[in-house]
Amino acid sequence: MRRRVLRVTVPDGAEHRADLLAAEEPLEIRVDGVPLTVTMRTPGDDIDLAAGFLFTEGLLPRLDDVHEIRMCDENVAAVTLKPGRAVAAGPAAARNFLTTSACGVCGKDSIEAIRVRSSFDVAADPVRVSPAVLAGLPDRLRDAQRVFSRTGGLHAAGLFAPDGTLLVLREDVGRHNAVDKVAGWALRGGLLPLAGHVLLVSGRASFELAQKAVMIGVPVLAAVSAPSSLAASLAEESGLTLVGFLRGTSMNVYAGAQRITAAAPADAGA
Amino acid sequence: MRRRVLRVTVPDGAEHRADLLAAEEPLEIRVDGVPLTVTMRTPGDDIDLAAGFLFTEGLLPRLDDVHEIRMCDENVAAVTLKPGRAVAAGPAAARNFLTTSACGVCGKDSIEAIRVRSSFDVAADPVRVSPAVLAGLPDRLRDAQRVFSRTGGLHAAGLFAPDGTLLVLREDVGRHNAVDKVAGWALRGGLLPLAGHVLLVSGRASFELAQKAVMIGVPVLAAVSAPSSLAASLAEESGLTLVGFLRGTSMNVYAGAQRITAAAPADAGA
Repeated sequence: MRRRVLRVTVPDGAEHRADLLAAEEPLEIRVDGVPLTVTMRTPGDDIDLAAGFLFTEGLLPRLDDVHEIRMCDENVAAVTLKPGRAVAAGPAAARNFLTTSACGVCGKDSIEAIRVRSSFDVAADPVRVSPAVLAGLPDRLRDAQRVFSRTGGLHAAGLFAPDGTLLVLREDVGRHNAVDKVAGWALRGGLLPLAGHVLLVSGRASFELAQKAVMIGVPVLAAVSAPSSLAASLAEESGLTLVGFLRGTSMNVYAGAQRITAAAPADAGA
Repeated sequence: MRRRVLRVTVPDGAEHRADLLAAEEPLEIRVDGVPLTVTMRTPGDDIDLAAGFLFTEGLLPRLDDVHEIRMCDENVAAVTLKPGRAVAAGPAAARNFLTTSACGVCGKDSIEAIRVRSSFDVAADPVRVSPAVLAGLPDRLRDAQRVFSRTGGLHAAGLFAPDGTLLVLREDVGRHNAVDKVAGWALRGGLLPLAGHVLLVSGRASFELAQKAVMIGVPVLAAVSAPSSLAASLAEESGLTLVGFLRGTSMNVYAGAQRITAAAPADAGA
């Protein structure tokens, strides 16, 4: 979205210029006519976003339950289920509320309270990825972003084959939406689980993103910036390989290092 | 949170080292025993976060309605209202669902559908801030972050007086939480509305953050990175001054430029 801004420079510069802003609009997701949630997102790939959101949040275990997803307005995605099907109540409750009966959520408990169970076992994925391939992914993501987008300031999520081939790139003002758009693209394309693939996110890796990676069966989640403590804990518990600070020629591996074909560390015995 | 990671460098470096991760844990907010929401946050200042969240989301118009907020567990904030008081249902519905009766939300409509009404009129705030003061704020925020935190990778929100004095700094894995912690601090300290103040956020400015700024009566929201289209639209409609890309000696003013004491632009007549 183009907008006229005042560019101010200290000490005394000021000029009007045009600036391109990342588009942000609310998307309401309805299931069988009932509003389920609103997410602030960058318009585009909204059917994928709705499908991916429902799936990665554990609300929709099978795409086969869906009769149709259509935009009934530019900001409303209407999901119609097949007769007799319903969105799952359990996982939704789990996501939204830690506990129903008692106070007592901390440490490892908190993951149990909020995590959604995946149909896929990423721990069993035998894929191995070389550090050289991983180190090249951020540039590929940025190059692809330059081609597809000129808005700037957007989060990106890219899905890669283990040899570094980019399969799909999605951008959004919300990084969870970018991942849900990738998830919905794969779900609707019949590609789940995404065994042997690498999901790269442009910013940081939160618990929520690690959770979504596990839900779609991706064995390797890489982030350009830092992961959170709970993302690392979830990755370790789930058998997800979590790579952070993937910049230049280096990276930190927070969990699942057996999938990285690096030289054995000098202090391997430590 | 300290964690052992494998540091990998292309082509063949690999060594174990300790890395400090930003703490992320779920916080459940309950009102009179009923779970209201769960937010993924960095533990700390949780009472402020609960109060700020309820206030900036329009769920709690007055702190006076609250009997007590206490942590009944390290990850559960229990809000007890005074007898006969309740959290507002209207704004909550407005935030969560765009429309209840019809499809038809776009452009300017979408702001109307999701915005929460503020008790404060930031448009009437006469404060003016110099570009030189604004340009100095990110360094002050980062300096303060260095003092208060060693976890890295956190979003920060800082509240400043118009002369650039830092009043409060809050950090969180979620930038909306950092702002809610500032909001709760001000609310519980009896400081609202925050007339004449500047709120600086370390990352980008979304609709949600602009909304929260308006709710606490801050007339100037500045962001180190880009605002979204809807943040700029809301700022313009609300009379909020929105500054983005505040880096080095320059900045972009997206709305409310009358508060910036810059030289008149060369193309002022354009």
